[in-house]
Amino acid sequence: MITVALAKGALLKESVARFSAAGLDFSAVLDPDNRQLMVPSECGRARALLVRNGDVPVYVAYGQAQLGVVGYDVLREHQMPVAQLVDLNFGGCRMAVAVKESSGYQRAADLPPHCRVASKFTRCARAYFDALELPVELVHLTGSVELGPITGIAEAIVDLVATGRTLKDNGLVAIEDLFQTTARLVGHPLSLRLDRGELGEIIDAMRAATPTPVVTA
Amino acid sequence: MITVALAKGALLKESVARFSAAGLDFSAVLDPDNRQLMVPSECGRARALLVRNGDVPVYVAYGQAQLGVVGYDVLREHQMPVAQLVDLNFGGCRMAVAVKESSGYQRAADLPPHCRVASKFTRCARAYFDALELPVELVHLTGSVELGPITGIAEAIVDLVATGRTLKDNGLVAIEDLFQTTARLVGHPLSLRLDRGELGEIIDAMRAATPTPVVTA
Repeated sequence: MITVALAKGALLKESVARFSAAGLDFSAVLDPDNRQLMVPSECGRARALLVRNGDVPVYVAYGQAQLGVVGYDVLREHQMPVAQLVDLNFGGCRMAVAVKESSGYQRAADLPPHCRVASKFTRCARAYFDALELPVELVHLTGSVELGPITGIAEAIVDLVATGRTLKDNGLVAIEDLFQTTARLVGHPLSLRLDRGELGEIIDAMRAATPTPVVTA
Repeated sequence: MITVALAKGALLKESVARFSAAGLDFSAVLDPDNRQLMVPSECGRARALLVRNGDVPVYVAYGQAQLGVVGYDVLREHQMPVAQLVDLNFGGCRMAVAVKESSGYQRAADLPPHCRVASKFTRCARAYFDALELPVELVHLTGSVELGPITGIAEAIVDLVATGRTLKDNGLVAIEDLFQTTARLVGHPLSLRLDRGELGEIIDAMRAATPTPVVTA
């Protein structure tokens, strides 16, 4: 039985579509009345685990799921031992440094040394500011990070930005990007090594079904 | 201006009721159409920050909020430097070890050494198993911890139990309690020391409005 870990939330619908292109129909998880966290595929040879974003790499790293779909941002933050297999090219957004529009900061390097930076992604933020050689105090928040500069708990935030609407609504502006993120197909390394072709077939089909990114000049 | 950090979710309604008894009306936060995260009180001399459970002690520890209401479980897990002022005696539940009903384990000490235990509260779990002198491997999950024993990622879980319904629905049973938890009024230590009576008045009123627990023999 193949087990697949899917992240609840923004990536779910397209994750189901991609597995469907590879012959595994998990559309039952999209039923708004579904309350089950473990859902069999239409064909019965696989099942999906519906878990939180951050838990996808955990289930895959421990081999409880052989495959999973999760954002690159989560992989960067959690650093779990999973194999990155396919960039699925959806769910695109960027990890960015944002500040109050009124602050006048133009680049991350303009931030005052030892200022506070709030983020859900404190590991990513730590690596970024270390590389800049700018010492900052990181404040770990679990949600609504945009409140940080408004309340004064932090001078800047590091957060995911999709449309920029949330930033704008809160008088914030992104000044620098850490990295781009998209959804990734990940796998359990040992399961991949022991695979007799079943996983490989799914991975190949998902790779084939992935639209190549449009490169803009 | 007094700022109060309130946890979204299960504790919100009663938190608002308790502040109302102390003369601060934040009922605007209960309006289902409210999308603001910073809401002024009816009288205009205070404001509420609507944040996630785990972020309440952060805002209070940094002094961005002088007061906050949060579960004792969160205080135990996050260990932030805030002053615990009043046990508000609502939102009661217990932190418990749970296992598969079919496992036959009767007590936490029955668990096999070096087994895996999944939890959102890994610090609480670590302290508990250390005190038992039972070495276990903790798996940090961020949600739906009840999936742990079902998928086999863990032998047991440590999680909050209110009615026990979620455990039952998933074939799990609580075998031992770590501690009881209720909502607590917390304060920023420095703000309390510099208080000219304004905070003290609110705290006293909230203490007076707290029903004394019924002691059952």
